[in-house]
Amino acid sequence: MSAGSTPAEYAELGRRMAELSDLHSIGGLLAWDRSTMMPRGGADHRGHQAATLESLAHAQLTHPRLGQLLDALEPWASGLDPDSDEARTVAVIRRDFEKAVRVPDSLAAEMARAESTGEQAWMAARAAGGDFGRFRDALARHLELRHAYVGCFDGYAHPYDVLLDDYEQGLRIADLRPLLDELQAALVPLVAAADPAHDGDPRVLTGTFPADRQRSAMLDLLTRLGFDDTAWRLDASPHPFAAAQSTRDVRITTLFDEADLAVTLYSALHEFGHGLYESQVEPAYARTPLGDLVSLGLHESQSRLWENVIGHSRPFCAWLAPQLKQAFPSALAALDADALYRGINAVEPSLIRIFADETTYNLHIVLRTELEARLMEGALEVDDLPTAWNDGMQRLLGVEVPDDAHGVLQDIHWAVGSFGYFPTYTIGNLMASQLWEALRRDIVDVDDHLERGELVPIREWLRENVHRHGRRYAPRELLQRVTGEPLRVEPFVTYLSDKLVDVGAVASRSGPPR
Amino acid sequence: MSAGSTPAEYAELGRRMAELSDLHSIGGLLAWDRSTMMPRGGADHRGHQAATLESLAHAQLTHPRLGQLLDALEPWASGLDPDSDEARTVAVIRRDFEKAVRVPDSLAAEMARAESTGEQAWMAARAAGGDFGRFRDALARHLELRHAYVGCFDGYAHPYDVLLDDYEQGLRIADLRPLLDELQAALVPLVAAADPAHDGDPRVLTGTFPADRQRSAMLDLLTRLGFDDTAWRLDASPHPFAAAQSTRDVRITTLFDEADLAVTLYSALHEFGHGLYESQVEPAYARTPLGDLVSLGLHESQSRLWENVIGHSRPFCAWLAPQLKQAFPSALAALDADALYRGINAVEPSLIRIFADETTYNLHIVLRTELEARLMEGALEVDDLPTAWNDGMQRLLGVEVPDDAHGVLQDIHWAVGSFGYFPTYTIGNLMASQLWEALRRDIVDVDDHLERGELVPIREWLRENVHRHGRRYAPRELLQRVTGEPLRVEPFVTYLSDKLVDVGAVASRSGPPR
Repeated sequence: MSAGSTPAEYAELGRRMAELSDLHSIGGLLAWDRSTMMPRGGADHRGHQAATLESLAHAQLTHPRLGQLLDALEPWASGLDPDSDEARTVAVIRRDFEKAVRVPDSLAAEMARAESTGEQAWMAARAAGGDFGRFRDALARHLELRHAYVGCFDGYAHPYDVLLDDYEQGLRIADLRPLLDELQAALVPLVAAADPAHDGDPRVLTGTFPADRQRSAMLDLLTRLGFDDTAWRLDASPHPFAAAQSTRDVRITTLFDEADLAVTLYSALHEFGHGLYESQVEPAYARTPLGDLVSLGLHESQSRLWENVIGHSRPFCAWLAPQLKQAFPSALAALDADALYRGINAVEPSLIRIFADETTYNLHIVLRTELEARLMEGALEVDDLPTAWNDGMQRLLGVEVPDDAHGVLQDIHWAVGSFGYFPTYTIGNLMASQLWEALRRDIVDVDDHLERGELVPIREWLRENVHRHGRRYAPRELLQRVTGEPLRVEPFVTYLSDKLVDVGAVASRSGPPR
Repeated sequence: MSAGSTPAEYAELGRRMAELSDLHSIGGLLAWDRSTMMPRGGADHRGHQAATLESLAHAQLTHPRLGQLLDALEPWASGLDPDSDEARTVAVIRRDFEKAVRVPDSLAAEMARAESTGEQAWMAARAAGGDFGRFRDALARHLELRHAYVGCFDGYAHPYDVLLDDYEQGLRIADLRPLLDELQAALVPLVAAADPAHDGDPRVLTGTFPADRQRSAMLDLLTRLGFDDTAWRLDASPHPFAAAQSTRDVRITTLFDEADLAVTLYSALHEFGHGLYESQVEPAYARTPLGDLVSLGLHESQSRLWENVIGHSRPFCAWLAPQLKQAFPSALAALDADALYRGINAVEPSLIRIFADETTYNLHIVLRTELEARLMEGALEVDDLPTAWNDGMQRLLGVEVPDDAHGVLQDIHWAVGSFGYFPTYTIGNLMASQLWEALRRDIVDVDDHLERGELVPIREWLRENVHRHGRRYAPRELLQRVTGEPLRVEPFVTYLSDKLVDVGAVASRSGPPR
C-alpha cells in the first residue's frame, strides 16, 4: 500500500473502534442513570446490563481481527508524521489492544465480580461503625487478583507500575516517589506554619440554603462560566461526578448541602472543570480512540483548576461574593469578598480526604500512595494496614484516627479494587498549577478577567492548549508541550504558599520552604 | 439426551438470550433518556449509540449458533408439556429467529435509516403547515421497503398480514376486517345518537393547574393505585410513554397540561396501566424471552383498562373527585363526581386521534387500518392518500379536514415506517372490555372497591390472570384462556353503550345497535 492514500484497513479499524466507543459511552449512561435517576429496585438488573456491555466491549477490544488490522497498518503508519491523527490512532489502539489481550477473560470477569463483593463488604464494615475485620478478606482478595493481573505483564520495574499505568499512562513509582517526597517536605512545615489565629472562618458559607434555590443559583453561576443547557445537565447525587455522553451532552452532578453552600459550590465547580474538558475535545475525534480522555491526572487538573486555582482565588472571590449575596440575600447578608477568600482558604488538618483543604489534601494522597506501593511489593500485610494508616495520619497531619470508618475505610477506591488511582489526584493538583503558570504567561491580565467574571479567554486557552487534543498526546507529553516542563512540584508549592501569605494564614513568604 | 434432564444447550441458549434481552433493555434506556433527560445537543451521538446496539442485537438474534441450538433442543422440547416454560421458550425463540434470519442485514439497515429520513420529512411537512408533498417521497420509500420486507416471507394470504404479525402475533387482515366492520356498524349510529344537549361538559377539568402541584397530585394518586417510588419513576415528556428497565424499574411519563388537568390525569393513568403490566411479569422471566411483553394489543388493553374502563367509570369518579378537589381546592371548588363522570365521557367527533373520546376513537383506527391494507395491496396510491383520508373522516365521523396537518400528517407512525401498528389500539380496547367482563365475574363487588379507591384486588387479578405470563402465551391464546372467548366486538359495544346511557348522552339502551 502507498503511504499517500489511506488504506481500507484503516476504515475498518475506525468502524470497529466507533462501535467500541459507543459501548463505552452507553456504559457511561448506565452508570450516570444509576447514580441519578434509577429507582433503587433497578440495581440488580442494571448490574446485568453493565456486565453484558463490559463483556461485549472486552470481546471487541481483544478481537483477533483487530490484531490483524494493526499488523497490516503499522508499516503504513510508520511512514506518516508521528504526530498525525492517523499515526497516533494506530499507536493508541495498539497500546489498548496489547494490554487487553494479556488479561484472560476469566481474570477480567473475576476482577469485575470482586468489585461488587468488595463494595458490599466495605459497606457492611462501615455500617458496623468501622469494623475493618469485616472488610479484610475482600481486600485481601482484591490484592491477590491485582497480583495475578500484574503477572500478566512483563518488563516492569515495580509491580505497582502496572497498576499506575492503567490510570496514568507510563507513570512509574520510581518517578512518583521523588515528587511525593518533595511535596511532603514542603507541605508538612507549611501546615505547621499555618496559624489558626490568623485563618479566615471556614464556616463563611454556612447557613440555611434551600436545595431548589441552590440549584437555580448554581445554574446561573455555571451558565456564566460556560454551562449551556442545550448541551449540559446539572443533577443532584450524593457523590458528585461528571459524565459526558459526547461533547454536546455533558452531565455533571453536585450535592445540595442545605447547611453549607461551600460544599455545593465547590463540588459544582470541580465537576464543571471535568465537564468543560469533555465538552471541548475536538469534535472530529467523536467515536474515535483520540476522543477518549488522556489520563485521570490531566482530567483532575481541570477540575482542580476550576475548583481551587480559579474558584479559591482572590479575584474570582471578588466577582463571586456579590453573586452569592444576590442569590441568598438574607443568609449571606454579611458576606464580603475578603471574608469569602480567607474563609475558604483556611488551613486545618483533618481526618477525611474529600473534606480536606487545598493545603492538607495532598498529604492524604502521599499516605495512600505509600501504603498501596508497600502492599503491592509485599512490604505491608493487609492485617497491618489500619495501624499503618493511623501511624501515617499522625506523622503527616498530626491527627489521631478515632476509628477505621474515619480512617482506612473512608474511601471506596480499595473496596472496588482501584489501586493506583489515588496518585492521580495529586498529579492533577501539580499539573493544574503548571498549566495555570503557562496560562498566565499568555493571558497576563487574567486576574482582571476573573474579577469581571469573564471566563471566555480562559476557556478558549484551555480548549486550544489542552482540551481539544483528547488522547492525541500522552499526559505528561501534553504537559511538556504546553508548559515546556516535565511534571514538577515547585509551581504548586509556590502557588500555595503565595496564597497562604496573601490570605494571612502564614506569616511571610520566607516561612515555608520553597 | 433424555427428556428428564435439561440439556446443556438450553443453558447456552439462556445465556445468549439474556445478553439479547440486556441489549434490548439498554436500548430502552437510551430511548427513555432521549425523551426525558438528554440535552438536545446529544441527539446525533445518541443515534449512533442506538444503531450500534441495534446491529449487535440483530447479530445476536441471527447468529448461526442460535439455529444449531434450536435444532438440537427441539426434539427434547417436543417431549415436554407444551405449556411448560421450557417448551414455550424454545418455540418463542424459534419464531423470532426465523423472522430475523429471513431479512437481509442490508434491508434491515435500510429500513432503520429510512426511519430517521421519514421522520425529518414528516416534521418538515408539518412545519410547512401540513404540506403532504414534502412527505410524499419518504412515504413512498417506506412502502417500497415494506414490500421488500414482505417479499422476504412466504405463506401469507395478504401482504399486510406480514406487517400485522410484527405487532400482533398471528393477526391477519381477514380476521381483522370483520371485527372492524362490526365495530363501525355499531359506532357510527352510536356517535350519531349522542346528543350534545345532554352531554356533560368536556371542559370539567380545565382551569389553572401549576405543573409542580400537578406532579405531586399525580404522584399521590398513582401511589394509591400501586406506584411505588422504590421501583417507579414519573417524569414529564411531550409524548407520554411507559418504559420498563425491569419489573423493579418502571418509568412512566405524562405531560403536564397546566390548562387541562384531564390531559395530565388520563395520560398518567394510561401509562400507569402499561407500567403495571411490566411490573407484574413473573420475576423469574427476567432476561428471558418469556419476560418480553406478549403483544402491543394486550399491552394497550392494560393502558386502556386504567385510563378508560376504570378511569372513566362512575364508581372511580366517585372516589377521584374528592381527591382532585383536595389537590386543587380553588380551581376545582365546584367539582362533583357526577359532573366529572359526565364531562369526561362526553361524545364529540374530532379531527385528532390522540384527543378523541372513547366513543369516536376506534373510528379513527378503522380508517387508518383500511388505508394501510389498501396501500399494501396496491389498491391505493400514495398520491391519493390525502383525499382518501379526508373522504374517510367525512364518512366515518362527519368532520371536514381543514389541512393535512390535521389530517393524514397527524401521527408519527407512517413517518417512521410503522405500518400495521394502528390496529393494536383497537384490539387493546376490545381486549380491555373482555378482560373487564371476566374480572367482574371474579370480583363481583368491584364497583365498591373502586368507590373506596381499593385497587389491590384489581391489580392482583390482573397479575394472576394476565401480567405474570409475559410472553408465555400468544396474545389471543391468553385472552381465550382468561375469558373463554376469542377476540370479540360485542363486549366493548355493550360496555360503551351502557355507559353512554348511564351518562345520559344517548337516550336509552335501545338506541344504539347491539
